[in-house]
Amino acid sequence: MIDLRSDTITKPTEAMRKAAYEAEVGDDVYGEDPSVKKLEETAAALLGKDDALFVTSGTQGNQIAVLTHCRPSNEILLEENSHIFYYESGAVAALAGVQTRTIAGNRGAINPLDLEAYIRADDQHFPETGLICLENTHNRAGGAVIPVENMAAIYEIAKRHQIPVHVDGARLFNAAAATNRPLTDFTEQCDTVQVCLSKGLGAPVGSILAGPKDFIANARKWRKRLGGGLRQVGIIAAPAYIALTEMRNRLTEDHNHAKIFAEGMGNITGLKVVNEVETNIVVVDVSGLNTTSDEFVDQLRQVGVQAVTFGRTLVRFTTHFDVSKDDILKALSGINLVVSSFK
Amino acid sequence: MIDLRSDTITKPTEAMRKAAYEAEVGDDVYGEDPSVKKLEETAAALLGKDDALFVTSGTQGNQIAVLTHCRPSNEILLEENSHIFYYESGAVAALAGVQTRTIAGNRGAINPLDLEAYIRADDQHFPETGLICLENTHNRAGGAVIPVENMAAIYEIAKRHQIPVHVDGARLFNAAAATNRPLTDFTEQCDTVQVCLSKGLGAPVGSILAGPKDFIANARKWRKRLGGGLRQVGIIAAPAYIALTEMRNRLTEDHNHAKIFAEGMGNITGLKVVNEVETNIVVVDVSGLNTTSDEFVDQLRQVGVQAVTFGRTLVRFTTHFDVSKDDILKALSGINLVVSSFK
Amino acid sequence: MIDLRSDTITKPTEAMRKAAYEAEVGDDVYGEDPSVKKLEETAAALLGKDDALFVTSGTQGNQIAVLTHCRPSNEILLEENSHIFYYESGAVAALAGVQTRTIAGNRGAINPLDLEAYIRADDQHFPETGLICLENTHNRAGGAVIPVENMAAIYEIAKRHQIPVHVDGARLFNAAAATNRPLTDFTEQCDTVQVCLSKGLGAPVGSILAGPKDFIANARKWRKRLGGGLRQVGIIAAPAYIALTEMRNRLTEDHNHAKIFAEGMGNITGLKVVNEVETNIVVVDVSGLNTTSDEFVDQLRQVGVQAVTFGRTLVRFTTHFDVSKDDILKALSGINLVVSSFK
Amino acid sequence: MIDLRSDTITKPTEAMRKAAYEAEVGDDVYGEDPSVKKLEETAAALLGKDDALFVTSGTQGNQIAVLTHCRPSNEILLEENSHIFYYESGAVAALAGVQTRTIAGNRGAINPLDLEAYIRADDQHFPETGLICLENTHNRAGGAVIPVENMAAIYEIAKRHQIPVHVDGARLFNAAAATNRPLTDFTEQCDTVQVCLSKGLGAPVGSILAGPKDFIANARKWRKRLGGGLRQVGIIAAPAYIALTEMRNRLTEDHNHAKIFAEGMGNITGLKVVNEVETNIVVVDVSGLNTTSDEFVDQLRQVGVQAVTFGRTLVRFTTHFDVSKDDILKALSGINLVVSSFK
Repeated sequence: MIDLRSDTITKPTEAMRKAAYEAEVGDDVYGEDPSVKKLEETAAALLGKDDALFVTSGTQGNQIAVLTHCRPSNEILLEENSHIFYYESGAVAALAGVQTRTIAGNRGAINPLDLEAYIRADDQHFPETGLICLENTHNRAGGAVIPVENMAAIYEIAKRHQIPVHVDGARLFNAAAATNRPLTDFTEQCDTVQVCLSKGLGAPVGSILAGPKDFIANARKWRKRLGGGLRQVGIIAAPAYIALTEMRNRLTEDHNHAKIFAEGMGNITGLKVVNEVETNIVVVDVSGLNTTSDEFVDQLRQVGVQAVTFGRTLVRFTTHFDVSKDDILKALSGINLVVSSFK
Repeated sequence: MIDLRSDTITKPTEAMRKAAYEAEVGDDVYGEDPSVKKLEETAAALLGKDDALFVTSGTQGNQIAVLTHCRPSNEILLEENSHIFYYESGAVAALAGVQTRTIAGNRGAINPLDLEAYIRADDQHFPETGLICLENTHNRAGGAVIPVENMAAIYEIAKRHQIPVHVDGARLFNAAAATNRPLTDFTEQCDTVQVCLSKGLGAPVGSILAGPKDFIANARKWRKRLGGGLRQVGIIAAPAYIALTEMRNRLTEDHNHAKIFAEGMGNITGLKVVNEVETNIVVVDVSGLNTTSDEFVDQLRQVGVQAVTFGRTLVRFTTHFDVSKDDILKALSGINLVVSSFK
Repeated sequence: MIDLRSDTITKPTEAMRKAAYEAEVGDDVYGEDPSVKKLEETAAALLGKDDALFVTSGTQGNQIAVLTHCRPSNEILLEENSHIFYYESGAVAALAGVQTRTIAGNRGAINPLDLEAYIRADDQHFPETGLICLENTHNRAGGAVIPVENMAAIYEIAKRHQIPVHVDGARLFNAAAATNRPLTDFTEQCDTVQVCLSKGLGAPVGSILAGPKDFIANARKWRKRLGGGLRQVGIIAAPAYIALTEMRNRLTEDHNHAKIFAEGMGNITGLKVVNEVETNIVVVDVSGLNTTSDEFVDQLRQVGVQAVTFGRTLVRFTTHFDVSKDDILKALSGINLVVSSFK
Repeated sequence: MIDLRSDTITKPTEAMRKAAYEAEVGDDVYGEDPSVKKLEETAAALLGKDDALFVTSGTQGNQIAVLTHCRPSNEILLEENSHIFYYESGAVAALAGVQTRTIAGNRGAINPLDLEAYIRADDQHFPETGLICLENTHNRAGGAVIPVENMAAIYEIAKRHQIPVHVDGARLFNAAAATNRPLTDFTEQCDTVQVCLSKGLGAPVGSILAGPKDFIANARKWRKRLGGGLRQVGIIAAPAYIALTEMRNRLTEDHNHAKIFAEGMGNITGLKVVNEVETNIVVVDVSGLNTTSDEFVDQLRQVGVQAVTFGRTLVRFTTHFDVSKDDILKALSGINLVVSSFK
């Protein structure tokens, strides 16, 4: 099986397993786990924020951010296909009581003028705009990088209206790698950021939420309420530290593989790559085969290739650490086979 | 002052005041107020539903409907400019913990195909689609009537997916009057409906939420939690009964006045009526005057005309019981004056 | 029927009905109803607070107070039989997301030392103590007056810990009347207060929430979310104004009737008055008759007397405006009859 | 340092670290982590439930249980010192919107008659009683075992009223070990149960929530919302499996140590053991020394002993895997020294 469903499936490396085995641990609820402290400090520095908090998933980091920034009845602004809105099972409304106001973006990027028009005036009929959430890279926009300039324009508006900005940076490392810019170029344009260590970086479990000191202190309380206050967390923080410090450079490889894959797919009659491939995600429209994504994905499995549906006729392929260039070429052969069977 | 801000401003009639004065009352928390019982029974019959509940506002009726239909983390589908989403200050998220998924409509009507595409599949990343809300007539679409056929198509889809449909019928009486159809033509296409007695019908206070027996029983409990369980409510239920039973026929007058007004406005250079006027709402774009709606509304007040902003360059005018045809003509004269001053 | 179930059942007086009939009204969502403005200003002055808000019930006033003072996850301290905890159908948790921590009181009054011990230390395992709620008079403690001195001791502690105090004063007018003290003696010992105009004072509908200017501004927004933003509210605000300004002095009569009733009940073998009657509530234990309160209340109805159960063997009787001294004596005769039938 | 603060501080054993190192892993969000599946199946069988879910903490398991069993505005019944109420930072109100109704227990056990009296009647003023939560062993009652017979009596009442029962069994393994009964004797008396693998059993991270199939299916969705859906979770599930299968028998040792410690403490003038020591917790009153628990705990640290405050003059000591009999004796010597300094 060549598994292109998601970069979340990456298995921990030998170095990560060894780090888990040897991890110096303590009870983190008492603030005594040295491995998680080292991870949090390193992450905060790398992201250019005062403080950082280890959380068990990107969703947990995003939810805690919204819970900490907002009050119930606040409205948050976010792109209409953003993960927080689309893929977090309604949690921001259920847990934080905030209303989601979605804006159609262009390749995942919100036009700053649109954004400003969506900020609510002061009127008892209106919710208060309490938070702006961006996603970088943007998953449903096919791993598109939100340009620093777009983030800066939005952040300027946000500050003018005194509205905080949170970035769902589940794949922010990919954005940095793709643009060859330091992470801080991106994180300077927001108040808080969540980054995943378990996607392209390959950690078995874990994300980081970073921001101002008092924000993180409150976030720690919300993490406890969600049941994310762990004990000898070093067992997962130590491999996550390897992911954070040693795996960032390899993301370029995933991006190259994605480009090769996209080119190959573009040459197959009946398939259409719908995104401009900037990072590790390739989205393909199969409507030219008169089939649905469900059926196509089923067929792929028969030839040893896995992918996920991304809409009625869209299929997403994601490259990652456990997929080599050779795998990519094999996958393309398999897909070719499947496509011929459709004709 | 000719007040065209809203049909909510209508003052109670002499008959309504008299009804309040003479109202037979009791403690409705004990279920002993005869006036509210009569109102609820009459409304249920008129709306073709098993049972009905008196509530103090349209917002309260809508909120109770969502609280009763849904569980936190459910997603509700509704038009992107609908009142529940746009004007209820984020209450559905704050109170009911539901996520709002908005769909762009055409003159307030959601395309049934769009709607079906927005219903969530069963997947742990997705919220469960818990409710569909329609609004008829649609305020921000300029009082547009949602056609019964559109409602029927949506209701068919909803039933197929076992998703309830609630109608925010704050101005459903206008829809019925404009189309010359019985209310039940509309209310047969939904599970629950809220109608306002205090808008075009002129009651001082009150709305009705109608639906199945067990739904209303649960709704009654949520009304109590929101503080809407009243005591000698007959004082307002009695005038509301007059509104419900004696004022529906007069809505056609408001609609005629709106058409006259719209025609007049269309003849003024620099103004553009942006909606096809079907009921009692006229929306005018003032951008041709190089001004904003805020400024224009301010100027109108100088000549004795009141209206409300409806966007950066849009102004809403609403006809109602307390505005005569003569008022409409006077208002047009005043507006003409204002417009000339802009040139 | 002599109805001693509750003082909520009082019917509006002729003066109140007339006030409704003649009420000067406007659209209160636009802030233009003169009758409700007069009521709010008068109430604020009487209660010694900066501002006041008309709400449709005591429950609504209390809920809005908690929503405005607190954030989800806060803990509120209140007496274990207080209305907010016992009788508001779980609304503070459902709407405001606050945890209720109840303290056993003595005749409804919380020992200040107990209270201070219940305030939470700063620890991530603990909710933050966000509000203290008192109830005066205390319904389930049999209409007991919470002494000003007790309130003052609690307020001193609260201020030291920077925790706001809200008073559920649904029957605060009874406390003032019973102690012959001005309302402000009580309301000086809290930040916000809710008082009902529809209980002993006889208004058909309505309560007042009073407090600081910015608190009331926020409370107004929460009232809108709960659907308590009304239109021509003068229709009920005008009779409520009569209740507030003309009916307070008559409460002493209710208190006298309650004492007469309690004395009579005390003389009936098998019945035991369990509260020291200070205001208009008499609580009677019927266990001496080897019966339950449900059965006893049923029997009373047969002889034309109505009361409510207040526990398995407890029955509550409440005096009010619609019950004369003669009614009290007749009720006692009827009850005597019922009791003899039990022997 | 001899650390008697909590059994949560236990460090993973060599076998657990090895298990982490070698863990077979997969993406558990896709249901493909074999280690967590094995753990969940083994735990379900051991607890006599249909299905089980791995969660990251006892708090997360409890919160998910409440979210899955209840609807906002439900009231849950639980002992007044139970962890869910006392130590979970108000999360059940904040996340699930349920009202907590606490009952004073005897050694942590609720009298079944009390419990039944607290179940709410059907009345619109009352919340619906939605869940009963028990805690076994009971932490704040000093690790007291709730007898199976007490649980059975409560479960009988619960079933009669159709109210589910959830057991917070963070230390249920201790209850089983102390009574020498199988876990199922306890778990048969409830619908759902949460057990911690990271306390006495020594796993670095993790708890199990077990119950009926459809309950666990819904719980899985709530876990995702809380951010507890992990990826290569085998890294912590594998050591947790060792904890579950190999460490249960050793709890008796902790209990013996606790008894030795309690006996020693009882012999020190000025100290009073306030709980009957049944498991691994010893609660000591230091008021005989005219000191506070804060000060006493500070002094202990000077002599190399750690404990936690448990009230103004109460200190809790917990035995666990990382504390030997020798440590216990050394701790007693150190404490003796501290106590002499107080005299």
